[in-house]
Amino acid sequence: MSDAGGSDYVVAVDLGGTLTKVAHADADGTVSGVVRLPTQLVDGQASVSWLASVLDDAVAARPAGTCAGFGVVVPGIIDVPRGVVRAAPNVGWYDVPLRLQLSQLTGRTGTVAHDVRSGGLAEWRIGAGVGARNLLFLPLGTGIAGAMVVDGRLVDADGYAGEIGHIAVPAAGDAVCLCGQRGCLETVASAVGVVRTHARLAGTVLDAREVAELARAGDPAARQAFDVAVAALVEALTTYATLLGPETVVIGGGLAGAFDLLGPPVTSGLDARMAFQRRPRLVPARLGADAGVIGAGLVAWDLIREDVGP
Amino acid sequence: MSDAGGSDYVVAVDLGGTLTKVAHADADGTVSGVVRLPTQLVDGQASVSWLASVLDDAVAARPAGTCAGFGVVVPGIIDVPRGVVRAAPNVGWYDVPLRLQLSQLTGRTGTVAHDVRSGGLAEWRIGAGVGARNLLFLPLGTGIAGAMVVDGRLVDADGYAGEIGHIAVPAAGDAVCLCGQRGCLETVASAVGVVRTHARLAGTVLDAREVAELARAGDPAARQAFDVAVAALVEALTTYATLLGPETVVIGGGLAGAFDLLGPPVTSGLDARMAFQRRPRLVPARLGADAGVIGAGLVAWDLIREDVGP
Repeated sequence: MSDAGGSDYVVAVDLGGTLTKVAHADADGTVSGVVRLPTQLVDGQASVSWLASVLDDAVAARPAGTCAGFGVVVPGIIDVPRGVVRAAPNVGWYDVPLRLQLSQLTGRTGTVAHDVRSGGLAEWRIGAGVGARNLLFLPLGTGIAGAMVVDGRLVDADGYAGEIGHIAVPAAGDAVCLCGQRGCLETVASAVGVVRTHARLAGTVLDAREVAELARAGDPAARQAFDVAVAALVEALTTYATLLGPETVVIGGGLAGAFDLLGPPVTSGLDARMAFQRRPRLVPARLGADAGVIGAGLVAWDLIREDVGP
Repeated sequence: MSDAGGSDYVVAVDLGGTLTKVAHADADGTVSGVVRLPTQLVDGQASVSWLASVLDDAVAARPAGTCAGFGVVVPGIIDVPRGVVRAAPNVGWYDVPLRLQLSQLTGRTGTVAHDVRSGGLAEWRIGAGVGARNLLFLPLGTGIAGAMVVDGRLVDADGYAGEIGHIAVPAAGDAVCLCGQRGCLETVASAVGVVRTHARLAGTVLDAREVAELARAGDPAARQAFDVAVAALVEALTTYATLLGPETVVIGGGLAGAFDLLGPPVTSGLDARMAFQRRPRLVPARLGADAGVIGAGLVAWDLIREDVGP
């Protein structure tokens, strides 16, 4: 997996509903040898024993250095202090004591954390958000969740924080969301949302990158799909800024590649719409699709450092 | 003002647009001898020298004990670390270095903080929200602002946090808000908002307490005014819970007296509306209209304790 030198490392894993990323992560946040694997689901549940073998394989693949532990990030409601996955519908886990089970299976200590909050930690600490004390990391991918930095701390709210993809915005109309609510931001402003709006208007299903290309070329259906996403993001970010006054919003996920189509019009829209609120600076993410696995490594190293002192 | 004993105290002041409250505050949060004064405005600005004389008078009125400093809370955008009032439209102050000016005029040290956040601190520490790690203090008064406790900390966002009264909710329609935006929560769910909705429907202006009495008696216009407020609160609290997952929402301000008309229907509305979000427990505030002045004392004592060590 990696031919890095003899330094200590952690095995960092970003577990997704279809794809799992594995890497060796150094203490400074550098990851090496990122490997992508199909997530092994058994009866709709991600397999804990498979995940343990993935960790073991990553250790075996490292020619030198000592494994200091594992960092696994998962989408869902995660009880980080206890290392328990409370609810992760994408991987079929409910009340799974994942940290304990992985420790028993691998004989190693580690951390279990939330994928988007860990990605936000990475963008905040070594990516596009360095220096901000109040920041929103907003990956626009299959869905939308946010990682929130407030007063210089990444907030958690017992795992409930940051579900900005599920606040209702008028621009989303009555669209039914996978979560069961209506008018959620992610129905129109995620990568899948843009694809869906375009497909409804154009009658053909293209991927988000293709819709963005068409929008740049002036295609009306593609432009409208982005216009709806922009309107929804202006509404959601106005609400966010009213509550939490971020200095910086880092746009990540698949639509970060369409930042040229989103950043400037959302910024103008916020300017026109806001009153007393602090205007956030919108920037594209720097760490790309690896933010989650980089963050998994950072979270694991944070625990190790705390364990051994400063 | 008070006939309390010889213990140290701070002078706590809650400065409002029309009314200013002054009290002696002990280190445990107890306030005594609360006095209400009309706020002295000169050319639309609260007078700093008048406020300094209020502090001096409060010290002179205390027969025993030593004044350890002052705690002043103000509505607006407050830079607490610097003690500067950035923008306080209700009292006409913009970029006023209030802590420095009061220290120069009175020869005492102290703190300048935000009225609602300080009131929230009081409800959290010694009022209805004791023990919560994630809490929203939501006073429904002339307007609406929130104090937000997230992961066990009262958050500030450089003074921008918690302006939940100015998030847009469909139930408020297109109502123009004093802030310049439309559809803000406070246009329909503040005490003034309920009065206004009722007046529009009934053609007579009653105060919020009278509208609540009529609603309890089944009066249709009064009931509808509360129904609109309830719908708006359900929308706003769903958004808040989606972002910040509070365990507890403390309803304060003038409408806390109508908690019987708000708490149960808002709780049912949240139950019906939410999906994965954590359901907050709604409770009425315990400290009443004195939360701000009690909080002013707590903030001042926090600084004094920090100065002299644990």
